[in-house]
Amino acid sequence: MTIELKDGERLDDLQRNHYQIIQHPEKFCFGMDAVLLSGFAKAKRGDHILDLGTGTGIIPILLSAKTEAEHLTGLEIQKESADMARRSVLLNDLQDRIEIVTGDIKEAGSIFAPASFEVVTSNPPYMIAEHGLANPNEYKAIARHEICCTLEDVIAASAKVLKPGGKLYMVHRPFRMAEIMQTMSAFGLEPKRLRMVYPYVDQEPNMLLMEAVRGGKSGMTVEKPLIINEMPGVYTREITELYSF
Amino acid sequence: MTIELKDGERLDDLQRNHYQIIQHPEKFCFGMDAVLLSGFAKAKRGDHILDLGTGTGIIPILLSAKTEAEHLTGLEIQKESADMARRSVLLNDLQDRIEIVTGDIKEAGSIFAPASFEVVTSNPPYMIAEHGLANPNEYKAIARHEICCTLEDVIAASAKVLKPGGKLYMVHRPFRMAEIMQTMSAFGLEPKRLRMVYPYVDQEPNMLLMEAVRGGKSGMTVEKPLIINEMPGVYTREITELYSF
Repeated sequence: MTIELKDGERLDDLQRNHYQIIQHPEKFCFGMDAVLLSGFAKAKRGDHILDLGTGTGIIPILLSAKTEAEHLTGLEIQKESADMARRSVLLNDLQDRIEIVTGDIKEAGSIFAPASFEVVTSNPPYMIAEHGLANPNEYKAIARHEICCTLEDVIAASAKVLKPGGKLYMVHRPFRMAEIMQTMSAFGLEPKRLRMVYPYVDQEPNMLLMEAVRGGKSGMTVEKPLIINEMPGVYTREITELYSF
Repeated sequence: MTIELKDGERLDDLQRNHYQIIQHPEKFCFGMDAVLLSGFAKAKRGDHILDLGTGTGIIPILLSAKTEAEHLTGLEIQKESADMARRSVLLNDLQDRIEIVTGDIKEAGSIFAPASFEVVTSNPPYMIAEHGLANPNEYKAIARHEICCTLEDVIAASAKVLKPGGKLYMVHRPFRMAEIMQTMSAFGLEPKRLRMVYPYVDQEPNMLLMEAVRGGKSGMTVEKPLIINEMPGVYTREITELYSF
C-alpha cells in the first residue's frame, strides 16, 4: 500500500517492529513522555485500549507492539493529527487492531459505549489554558494547553468508558499531582501506582506516571525512581532499554 | 537542674546544640523519619509550632535548634512519653520555648485556640489499625498504628489550629499518598511541596515528606529525590549532613 506524505510531514522510524510514524515538526511530534507512558502502561491479551488525545497515534502504535491487546482506539480532536495517525496505522498494516476516531474527549462518553474498555491511556495537555502565553502555533497549543479539554475532562471521560476494575494510565507534570489525585478520586478512579520521573538523580522530577483503577480500594504503590540521564547526553540503562525494545 | 532517669530509660545525644533526649527502648525511640521531617519543615522567626503526637518530643527539640520559632508545643496522648519529653525539655533548658501538653489529637481543636499556629508538624502513626497484628507492645502500637487517632484526625486537627496560610509538615508512608492528598484537600489544606524518600536510588520510596498550606492554591512542587544510602552502611552526603547539623 502506498501512503502519501503531505507537505512538511516526515517519516520517523520507531525502532520497534520496523514501525514508522508520520509526524509534522511544525504541528506536533511525540516526546519522551509518550514513550515512558507506553512503557508504564500494562494490558492483557484481549484487552480493549482507548487512548484519549492520541495526536499522531504514537501510544496505540507503541502499545500494539508491546502488548497483546485485542484492539486499540485513538481519539483525537485535531483533524490533521488524526489524519496523520490514520495513515501511520495503514503504513504499519495495523488497521485490523487500531482505529483512529476524530472527536472530542468531552464527548467520549457518547462516542463510545459506557464501561467498554479495560484500559485507557492519556498523555493530555499539561498546561492550564491561562498559564503563560498559549503557544502561537495553534496545533501545538491545543496539544500542550488545556484549550479543548481539561484534566477533569480526561478523567471524567476515562471514568465513563472504563469497565469496573479497568485501568487509566496517565503521564503528567508533577506540579499537578495533588489535583490529579483529588480529581481521580472524585470520579471513582483510585490512584494505585505512581512513578516519578527525574531528569537526573539530583533534580526535581519533570514527569509522573500514574495508574488508577476504576472502583479501586485506597492504598497505592510508589515505584523506584525513573531517572532519565546518567550524565548529559547519556541515558540511563533503563531508558536505553525502553527505547530499544 | 538534676533530671532523673526512670527504670529502662536511656539518654541519647542529639549531636545538635549538645541536646540530649530521654528515650525508653521498650516504649518508643525516634527514627530517621523524625529527623527527616525536622530537616524538611520550615519556620520563620516568631512562629508558633505545634507538633501533633510528639512522642518523646524529638521534633520540637530538633526544631528549637534549627529554627527561630518563638514557641513550640508538643501534644502527646501517652503519659509516659509526655513525661519523658517534659524531662528532656528541662534537661536541655528549653522550658521557655517548648511546652509539652498531655492530650488527644482529636481534641486539639478545643485544647488550643483556633487558627493559633503558623506551623504544625506531625509524624503520625502510619499503619491503619487493622493492618497486620497491632504491636503487642501497647506503647509502640499506639505510636505506629492508628489506634488513638487516624490520618483524618491529624489533618482535621491541623486545619483547625493552623492560621490561614499556615503550614502543615507531615512525614508518612507512600502507600497512603493518594489518601493523604485527598484528605488534606477535603479539609482545606492544599499539598504544596512533596519529597519522596528512597532508601537506595534503585528502590521504592519508604517515606514521603509533605508540606500543605491552609487555603493554598492548587499547584505543587515535587523536590529532587532524597536518597538515604549510597551503599549498605554508607549514608549519602545529604543524610550525613542532616544528622551532623
